[in-house]
Amino acid sequence: MSQPVAPVHRGVFPIAPTPFADSGELDLPGQRRVLDCMIDQGVDGICILANYSEQFLLSDAERDTLLDACLQHVAGRVPVIVTCSHFSTRIAVERARRARSAGAAMLMLMPPYHGAALRAEEPALVEQFARVADAAQLPIMYQDAPLSGVTMPAAALVRLARAVPLVRYFKIEVPGTAAKLRALIEQGGDAIEGPFDGEESITLVADLDAGATGTMPSALAPDLIKPVLVHHREGRRAEALAQYERILPLLNYENRQCGLRATKIVMREGGVIASDAVRHPLEPLHPAARAGLMELVRALDPVALRWGK
Amino acid sequence: MSQPVAPVHRGVFPIAPTPFADSGELDLPGQRRVLDCMIDQGVDGICILANYSEQFLLSDAERDTLLDACLQHVAGRVPVIVTCSHFSTRIAVERARRARSAGAAMLMLMPPYHGAALRAEEPALVEQFARVADAAQLPIMYQDAPLSGVTMPAAALVRLARAVPLVRYFKIEVPGTAAKLRALIEQGGDAIEGPFDGEESITLVADLDAGATGTMPSALAPDLIKPVLVHHREGRRAEALAQYERILPLLNYENRQCGLRATKIVMREGGVIASDAVRHPLEPLHPAARAGLMELVRALDPVALRWGK
Amino acid sequence: MSQPVAPVHRGVFPIAPTPFADSGELDLPGQRRVLDCMIDQGVDGICILANYSEQFLLSDAERDTLLDACLQHVAGRVPVIVTCSHFSTRIAVERARRARSAGAAMLMLMPPYHGAALRAEEPALVEQFARVADAAQLPIMYQDAPLSGVTMPAAALVRLARAVPLVRYFKIEVPGTAAKLRALIEQGGDAIEGPFDGEESITLVADLDAGATGTMPSALAPDLIKPVLVHHREGRRAEALAQYERILPLLNYENRQCGLRATKIVMREGGVIASDAVRHPLEPLHPAARAGLMELVRALDPVALRWGK
Amino acid sequence: MSQPVAPVHRGVFPIAPTPFADSGELDLPGQRRVLDCMIDQGVDGICILANYSEQFLLSDAERDTLLDACLQHVAGRVPVIVTCSHFSTRIAVERARRARSAGAAMLMLMPPYHGAALRAEEPALVEQFARVADAAQLPIMYQDAPLSGVTMPAAALVRLARAVPLVRYFKIEVPGTAAKLRALIEQGGDAIEGPFDGEESITLVADLDAGATGTMPSALAPDLIKPVLVHHREGRRAEALAQYERILPLLNYENRQCGLRATKIVMREGGVIASDAVRHPLEPLHPAARAGLMELVRALDPVALRWGK
Repeated sequence: MSQPVAPVHRGVFPIAPTPFADSGELDLPGQRRVLDCMIDQGVDGICILANYSEQFLLSDAERDTLLDACLQHVAGRVPVIVTCSHFSTRIAVERARRARSAGAAMLMLMPPYHGAALRAEEPALVEQFARVADAAQLPIMYQDAPLSGVTMPAAALVRLARAVPLVRYFKIEVPGTAAKLRALIEQGGDAIEGPFDGEESITLVADLDAGATGTMPSALAPDLIKPVLVHHREGRRAEALAQYERILPLLNYENRQCGLRATKIVMREGGVIASDAVRHPLEPLHPAARAGLMELVRALDPVALRWGK
Repeated sequence: MSQPVAPVHRGVFPIAPTPFADSGELDLPGQRRVLDCMIDQGVDGICILANYSEQFLLSDAERDTLLDACLQHVAGRVPVIVTCSHFSTRIAVERARRARSAGAAMLMLMPPYHGAALRAEEPALVEQFARVADAAQLPIMYQDAPLSGVTMPAAALVRLARAVPLVRYFKIEVPGTAAKLRALIEQGGDAIEGPFDGEESITLVADLDAGATGTMPSALAPDLIKPVLVHHREGRRAEALAQYERILPLLNYENRQCGLRATKIVMREGGVIASDAVRHPLEPLHPAARAGLMELVRALDPVALRWGK
Repeated sequence: MSQPVAPVHRGVFPIAPTPFADSGELDLPGQRRVLDCMIDQGVDGICILANYSEQFLLSDAERDTLLDACLQHVAGRVPVIVTCSHFSTRIAVERARRARSAGAAMLMLMPPYHGAALRAEEPALVEQFARVADAAQLPIMYQDAPLSGVTMPAAALVRLARAVPLVRYFKIEVPGTAAKLRALIEQGGDAIEGPFDGEESITLVADLDAGATGTMPSALAPDLIKPVLVHHREGRRAEALAQYERILPLLNYENRQCGLRATKIVMREGGVIASDAVRHPLEPLHPAARAGLMELVRALDPVALRWGK
Repeated sequence: MSQPVAPVHRGVFPIAPTPFADSGELDLPGQRRVLDCMIDQGVDGICILANYSEQFLLSDAERDTLLDACLQHVAGRVPVIVTCSHFSTRIAVERARRARSAGAAMLMLMPPYHGAALRAEEPALVEQFARVADAAQLPIMYQDAPLSGVTMPAAALVRLARAVPLVRYFKIEVPGTAAKLRALIEQGGDAIEGPFDGEESITLVADLDAGATGTMPSALAPDLIKPVLVHHREGRRAEALAQYERILPLLNYENRQCGLRATKIVMREGGVIASDAVRHPLEPLHPAARAGLMELVRALDPVALRWGK
C-alpha cells in the first residue's frame, strides 16, 4: 500500500527547544549549541518548531530564521522533522514547501484548529493533509495531541493514512496512548509505518509493548531514554523496564511540574544555553519546582547537564 | 477613574473582510474598495484583522501589508480598530506598536489562548493587556468571544478595566450578551467607556436596551444597522425595533448559515470585490445557502449590493 | 434498508417544560396543563425530559414520576418522544425500557458524555445506541447538540444509522444545521427517515429548504411555527417565509436572551402554570429581559399566552 | 478565620471503587469487603461515590443504597468523605443532607457543570457551595478537576473559602498541581485547612513539598503511599522520595493506562471482589495492559493483592 520514498525512521526523535535571550530575542548561537548537544545525546533525529519549541510564541519570520538556521547547522547529521501545523491550509503548505527546500526529512502536522471553536472535521482535515503532502512530497507525522481539540479515533486515523499515503507516522499522545497505538497498528497494518508516542516518553515501555517504534520526548535526557528503546528492540525487555523506571521520576516531574521549561533549565545549567527564559504568558518555573527538577536531574546526570561545561 | 486619551467611540464599527483572489492571494485593490464601500455605508469606524477578516488564515507578512494598506487608504476618514490578538504577549505588543504607528485609533484583543488547552488565566491575562497598553498607549477593546475559550465573568472584566485603565471597551458576544452587558455596566461604572456587542448585531436591540453604545457587525449591511442605533439613541425605540426586525432575517441567516462568507458574497455581487473566495479549511457556501442569502439581501438592497455597479 | 416499525413522524414536536412550584417542587397538575396546552397548540407530538425540560436538574425519581404522569395524561392524543440520554449505557437502557412501557412513540438520545472530558467515541457510541434500540424496539432520534461535546460529522451519523436501523431520526442543532442536514440526507438516503432541526426553530426555513421534515422547538409558540412547516410542505414557500419572518424576532429573543425560561414565563402569564421558577444554578431572567420577551410575545399572542385565562 | 467544627483531616483518603457483578448489578458484599480491605490498608479516611467510584454510572437509587451500606459498614472506624456533586443545587443539597444523616465526616463537591456547555460561573458556584454548607453543616472539599470544565484560579478558590468558611479542603488535580497548591496556601492562609492532591497521588512528593497535607489516590495501594506522607511529615524527605520513586511506575501505569480499572483488577486478583467489571461505555482493560499492570503490582505486593487470599 505504502511505497516508501524515504528510509523508515525509528528511535528517539526529541524536540529541540527554542532558546531566547533574557530579553526575549532569539538566541541563534544557543540554538546551534542545542542541536549539537542533541546530536551528542545520540538522538536518531530532531524535531523542530514543535509545541515544546514554543511554536505558538514565534512569529512567522522567526520560524523561517529558525528553520534555515537549524537545517543548515544539522547539515544532515541526523534527519530533521519540521512542524508545519497551521489552521490555514495555505500557510501549512507554504511551511511544508519551505521545510522541504531547507532539507527536512519529514513534516509533523496537528489537524487544523484555531482556538476553542474552529476545527476542521474529517473531510477538510484529510484535504489539508493531502495538499501538504502533494506540495512537499515528504512523509508526514500526524500529531494526535489534545491541544488541537480534534478527536480522531484509530479508525479515522487509518482512513487518513489510506487516503494520503505519505501520512504514515503517527505521534499519539493522548490518555490511553498504548491502547490507541495498539488499535492503530492492528487496523492500519502497512499503512502505519511509524507508530510513535510523545509526551516526554512518560509511557514509553507500555507504548513499546503496544508496538511503538519511536518516541518524541523533549531534549532533556534522550541519552537516558534511548537505551530503553534499544533494549526493548533487541529483546531485553527487563533491562528496558529497569532503565525506564530509573528515569521515570524525572520524566514525571518534567511532564507534571515543568513542561517545556525543564529542558531549558537543564540546558542552561549544563552550559548549553545562556538563558532559560520562556516567553510570556508562559511563566518561569517557581524556584521550588526548579529545585525539585534539579534534584532529580543531578542524580541522573544526563548529557544536557554537562555538555557545555 | 478613566482619563480619556481619545474621543469616546460609539456607533457601528463593522469588521472589514479580507478579500482574496480566486487563487488565494491577497487582493489589495479589492481591500481598498471594501474600505471605501464601508465608509459609504456610513460606518462610525472600521475594525480590521478580526476573526471575520479571517485573521486566523493570514501570515504575519500579510497582516503587515494589510495594516499599512488599510490605514493609509482610510487616511483618517473614520477611526480604525486593529485586532492584535496573539497568545504571545511579545507578538501582541509588536502588533500593537505597529498598529499605533500606522494610525490605529483603538486596539482589539482577545485574551491569550492557543488551541484547546493553552489559556492565560486572570493574572497573566491582565499582564498581557497591561503590556500591550503600555506599549501602544491606545484604548483597548476586550473581545469577549467563545473562540478564545477563556471565561471572564463580568466581575473579572471589571477587575481588568480597573487594573489597566486603557482597557475600556468591551465587545461582548457570548450567550446572554445583554445580561452580561448589564452586569458589566452596573459593576464597572465609569471604567466601562464602551460597552459593545458583536456577533453580526444579532441581538442589537436587547443589547442597546441593556446599555450598549456600539456594535461590531460584519460589513454586510451596516447601513441598515446604523438606523437602529440612531433611533434608539434618540429615543425612538419603536422605530429602532421596527428597523431591527426588518433586517433580522438577514442577520440571522448570516449568523447561522454563512458566517464571514456572507459579506464577501454580497460584496462580490455588488461589484465591490472580484472574488468571494475564503481560505481552506473554510469552505465555500453551498449554492443553496448562497441562494437563501441572496433572496434575503435582495429584498433589503444594502449599499454593499449596489456599491460597485 | 430501514423497515418502519412505526409511522413516519414529521411536523412540530416541541419540548414540554417541567413546571416547578416556587419552592422548587414538581408541579404535576401544572405539568398536565402544559401538555393540554401543547395539544391545543396543534403540535404533531411532544418531547419530554429534554434539556429544555431541565432534565439535568431532575432526580431519577422525578424523571420516573414525570414519565408516567405525562404519558398517562397525553394518553395517545399525540405521539410522545422521551429523552433517555445518560452516560451510562445501563441507565439509558433502563430509561428506554421504562419509556416503552409507559407508551413512548420514540426515544431521543444524545451521545454518551459526562462533563468536559468523558465522551464515548464512535465504536462505544454506536454500541450504546444499539443496546438501547435492542431493549426498547422503538425508533430513536439522535440529538446532535453541542452540549454533549461529541462531534459526529454527517458521514459518522450515516454509519450510525446503517449500524442501528432504529436510529432514523436526527435532530441537528449545531452551527450550520442546514448544511449538515443537507449532507446527512444526501449521504444517508433511506436510512434518514426524519431529519429534524431544533434550537427553538431559529433556522427553520433554511432547514426545511435543506430537507428537514420536522422541528423540535420549545413550547412557547408552536402554533405559530406550525404554519411555516405546513406552508412549506404544501409548496407555499413565500407564505412559509413570511410567517417565519413574522415570528423570528420572538424566536431569536428566546434563543439568545431567555433559553428555556421563555416558555415558562409565557405559560405563567397565560395561566397555564402557576410559577415560572427554574432550578438553581439556573437563574431567573432579569426583569428587563422579561419585559423584552413580553413585548414581543404580546404582539404575536400565541396560544400559550391566553390558554389558561 | 475558620472555626473548626471538626477535627483536621490529613493523610491518605483513597476513593473506594464500586464493585459490580459481571451482570452489572451492584455487589454490596463486595463493597463491604472493599471497605474492610481499605481499613486494613491503613487509610486515614475513605471517599465514596467519587469519579473513581464510577459515580457518573450510578443511578440515584444505587447511590442511596451505597451511601447507607458504606457508612453503616465503616461505622466510624475511619472518617468518610461523600461526594455530592450535581449540576442541580437542589440535588446536591439533598445528597449532602442525606450524607450527613448517614454519618459523613466531610463532603466533596465539584463545581456545578453539565456536559460541554453548562457551567456555573463564580457567583452561582459560590451560591451552590453556600447552600450545601448551610444544609449539611459539614466541612467541604472542593474538587478542582478538569472533568468539570470549570477553571477557578487560586485567587477564586480563596474567595470561595472566605465566602463559605466550611469550604476549607481543596483537592487540586490539574496540570501544575504543586504550583496551584503553593499559590492557594500562600493566598488563602488559615482559610485553607486541608490542601490535598488527587490523581492517583502521581505528583505526591512535589505536592507535599508545596504544602499538601493530604492525598486522595485510588484504593490500589494506599498502604504503599502512606509511608511517603509519614516520612515527609516527620522530616525524612529522602525516605519519602525513595518510597515515592519505588511506587511511581505503578502509579504512572495506573494513571495513564488503566484509570479506575486498576484498583478493581488488583482487588479481584487479591480476592477482595469477585468481578472487575466496569459499566459501559467504559470498556474492560486490554489484556496486554492488564498484564502490564499485574507485572508492576506483583513486584510491589500491596495489601489489595493479598487481602482476600
